[in-house]
Amino acid sequence: MKRILAVLALASLASGASAQMKPEDAIKFRQSAYGFMAWNMGKIKANLEGTYNKDEVAKAAHAVAVTATSGMGALYLPGTDKGTGWKETRVKPEFFQQQEEVGKLARAFNAAAAELDKAAASGDMAAVKAAFGKTGESCKACHDKFRKD
Amino acid sequence: MKRILAVLALASLASGASAQMKPEDAIKFRQSAYGFMAWNMGKIKANLEGTYNKDEVAKAAHAVAVTATSGMGALYLPGTDKGTGWKETRVKPEFFQQQEEVGKLARAFNAAAAELDKAAASGDMAAVKAAFGKTGESCKACHDKFRKD
Repeated sequence: MKRILAVLALASLASGASAQMKPEDAIKFRQSAYGFMAWNMGKIKANLEGTYNKDEVAKAAHAVAVTATSGMGALYLPGTDKGTGWKETRVKPEFFQQQEEVGKLARAFNAAAAELDKAAASGDMAAVKAAFGKTGESCKACHDKFRKD
Repeated sequence: MKRILAVLALASLASGASAQMKPEDAIKFRQSAYGFMAWNMGKIKANLEGTYNKDEVAKAAHAVAVTATSGMGALYLPGTDKGTGWKETRVKPEFFQQQEEVGKLARAFNAAAAELDKAAASGDMAAVKAAFGKTGESCKACHDKFRKD
C-alpha cells in the first residue's frame, strides 16, 4: 500500500498538474476518460454490427488508444479510493494495494488498444473485430477485479 | 433550427452508435469529452508554468486534438438542449439554432488544437505557449456564446 501511494504521489508531483489536484477532480477526470472511451468503443461496436465506416472506426480506435496511454494512473491519487467525482467512485480498495496486478492489467489494456488502433487504421474489419474483442476483455478483466458492481 | 436538427439526426444515423443513443448518454459523453480535455489542458498549463516535460505535453496536446476531432457534434442530438448527463447540461438553446456560428467556432477550435498538437510534438515551448493560449481562447469563445454560467 505504502509503495503504490509513494509511486502515485511521485507521479503526481512529476506532472505538476496533479500535485495540487483535488481528490474530487482526480475522480471526475478519470470518470471522464472512461466515459470518453466508452463512447468511442460504442461507436466501433455499432460499426462492426452495422455499416462499417473505416474513417469513423479509425478515429474512434485512435481515441481509445490515446486515452489509454494518457497517464490515467496519476489520477489514482492517495485518498481517491473513496469519494465523488461525477458520481461516487466504484474503485475497490484492492486497486491501491495490488500494484503489480494493476500494472499488468493496465499494460494488457494498453497493448490491446494499440492493436485496435493499428487494425482500425489498416481498415481490416476482421482484424478490428478481433482486436475490439480483446480490448473489451481487457476492460472487463480490470472491472471484474477492481470495480464494484 | 429544423436544419441543424436534420443535420444532427443524419449524423447520428450515419454513425449508427448515436441512432439509439439516449439523450442522457449523449450529454454524459460530451461532458466526459470536455472533462478529458480539461484534464489534458491542465497538464499542459502546469508544464508551461513549472517544469516542462516534452513527452507529457506532446501526449496531452495530442489527446486534446484527438478529442476535438472525435465527432462530438453527433452528441448534440435533438432533445439534448435540456437534460442531465453527469450533471445538468449548460448548453444554451442558441447552440441548436446558430449552426453556422457553432461550425465556425468548432473549426477554429479544431485548428487551434491541431496547431497545439504540432507545436507540442516539436517540443518548441514558446510555440506551445502561443498555441495553448489560442486553444484556450477558442474554448472560451464557445463558452461565452453557448454555455450558461
